[in-house]
Amino acid sequence: MKSAVRIAVTGAAGQISYSLLFRIASGDMLGQDQPVILHLLEIPDGMETLNGVVMELSDSAFPLLESIKIGSDARDIFGDIDYALLIGARPRTLGMERKDLLSHNAAIFSDQGKALDESAKREVRVLVVGNPANTNALIASSNAKNLNPIQFTAMTRLDHNRAIYKLAQYLGTHCSKIKKMSIWGNHSATQYPDISHVEFSGQSAKDLVDGEWVKSVFVPDVQQRGVAIQKARGASSAASAAAAALDHIRSWVNGTESGDWTSMAIMSNGSYGIDDGLMCSFPVSCRSGKISIVPDLALDSTSRIRIMASVDELKEERDAVRHLL
Amino acid sequence: MKSAVRIAVTGAAGQISYSLLFRIASGDMLGQDQPVILHLLEIPDGMETLNGVVMELSDSAFPLLESIKIGSDARDIFGDIDYALLIGARPRTLGMERKDLLSHNAAIFSDQGKALDESAKREVRVLVVGNPANTNALIASSNAKNLNPIQFTAMTRLDHNRAIYKLAQYLGTHCSKIKKMSIWGNHSATQYPDISHVEFSGQSAKDLVDGEWVKSVFVPDVQQRGVAIQKARGASSAASAAAAALDHIRSWVNGTESGDWTSMAIMSNGSYGIDDGLMCSFPVSCRSGKISIVPDLALDSTSRIRIMASVDELKEERDAVRHLL
Repeated sequence: MKSAVRIAVTGAAGQISYSLLFRIASGDMLGQDQPVILHLLEIPDGMETLNGVVMELSDSAFPLLESIKIGSDARDIFGDIDYALLIGARPRTLGMERKDLLSHNAAIFSDQGKALDESAKREVRVLVVGNPANTNALIASSNAKNLNPIQFTAMTRLDHNRAIYKLAQYLGTHCSKIKKMSIWGNHSATQYPDISHVEFSGQSAKDLVDGEWVKSVFVPDVQQRGVAIQKARGASSAASAAAAALDHIRSWVNGTESGDWTSMAIMSNGSYGIDDGLMCSFPVSCRSGKISIVPDLALDSTSRIRIMASVDELKEERDAVRHLL
Repeated sequence: MKSAVRIAVTGAAGQISYSLLFRIASGDMLGQDQPVILHLLEIPDGMETLNGVVMELSDSAFPLLESIKIGSDARDIFGDIDYALLIGARPRTLGMERKDLLSHNAAIFSDQGKALDESAKREVRVLVVGNPANTNALIASSNAKNLNPIQFTAMTRLDHNRAIYKLAQYLGTHCSKIKKMSIWGNHSATQYPDISHVEFSGQSAKDLVDGEWVKSVFVPDVQQRGVAIQKARGASSAASAAAAALDHIRSWVNGTESGDWTSMAIMSNGSYGIDDGLMCSFPVSCRSGKISIVPDLALDSTSRIRIMASVDELKEERDAVRHLL
């Protein structure tokens, strides 16, 4: 048996984590031959609930779950970790301005970036799920001076999966037939789900769909899907967010399939004219643990305008937290 | 690729199902090469929430999830199913007498038994999780006149896993080292978690533990674990119940490991002096899809008394719903 891998999850008593932790412990993230140790971070107010979650994890007698460590001190919880899934974030409450949300979370993620820098394994891989995810990831990365920015990612896989489903449904096919979907920009309502390069059974999806449907149904529905879920369930997306987080890590670790790619927010290297140093979603391929932006895609003017609108939002977010970068 | 298997889940908008469905769809129950079709049953009041769950399942773009069917009519939803996971049950509300709880659920499960009989595949396998699980399973089986009672089981795997964890913790070892745990009787506070036959690294656990600890800590803690979780989490066990349901089905389908067994409530054949026709938890082994009660275990007088106390409760429950059997 391999030696255990240490996985930190923040916001561990929250709803996304409740869906995520049992799947990690069952081997759904890193495979059936990989023992895991969970390092769970939660604020003191959430500790009693977290104790209940730990009881349930224990009660599941998972063969791969070697042990569980819990606490409220990021420096302690991030000690020697191989993975950090940063789920916890301050949610937007009634009457809170967008800039207040940004600055509350900026404080959390600058501290967690420093804690990762001080405590985590040097090759730690970080996935930020807590919103605003891109900018939170940027802040964490900027505050982890001794870690490489390529170790930091933010999640747009849920948007990616939603876009695949939406298109598959329109085409009357199964999700698994849709290849080369792209999510560009910010994980927010400005994101640009882009079908320009999608292949479906050897055909270009662009030739099969009505442009008006893409513009007035597909793009806004993917952008607004979170709100629709919230309305139907009476609660935010949790299990689908957890499923996307597992997909994200698995793609990163195991690689993307040849003839396909996925979407992740990573630090821009200036590709496609997107400012160097922004944490932006791109179509990416993964191989041997390395994430690469898919190069040389042709972008039509509509796509370019949409992407740049989302990039502008990322710049504004960055500028609002510049004192922490 | 294999052809898809149809899995019905009742109470599909509830908390256990929310943990369960995404794991089934990801291949955690029947394997990474087995496509699945979900048939989800919910009462009309739960349909809006269920729509939200279906949206999230869709948004997860699971490669193995072929399609989803939802509805409130058991005869329709159970059509052609291979598995039925009966999670939904009327919960006990404040001031409700135990016999009212029994009779409310008896009505649900007698109807579902008839619906299985009319609509499901002839070889359907049924797992009842909704409480009172043993008696609900008995009612469902009795009302499915053309299905074999061996196709019906109730879940005591969560108790089994909890007992393993509790003992592993006491012995300072990992759950995976504990073999041959047994849960006898009813899935209720009268259940008897039995370490008499447990093996740990080639030793008998009985020789390693203090008898007083077993009696005054181990047994009551396992029996009362659900209440402790409820207190800590502010909600009933959901993800651990879902994990146990997956374990139950996997053991049934893939078999138990040699040198180990598990616990399931199945129809008694009179083994160990337990009334023929009661749905009672036993230590069982599974091979080639067949569940067998572990034979010829020596039971000391303490065990026998404890088991019979739980069996007496099962008889009372059976007698209270006799008009539906």
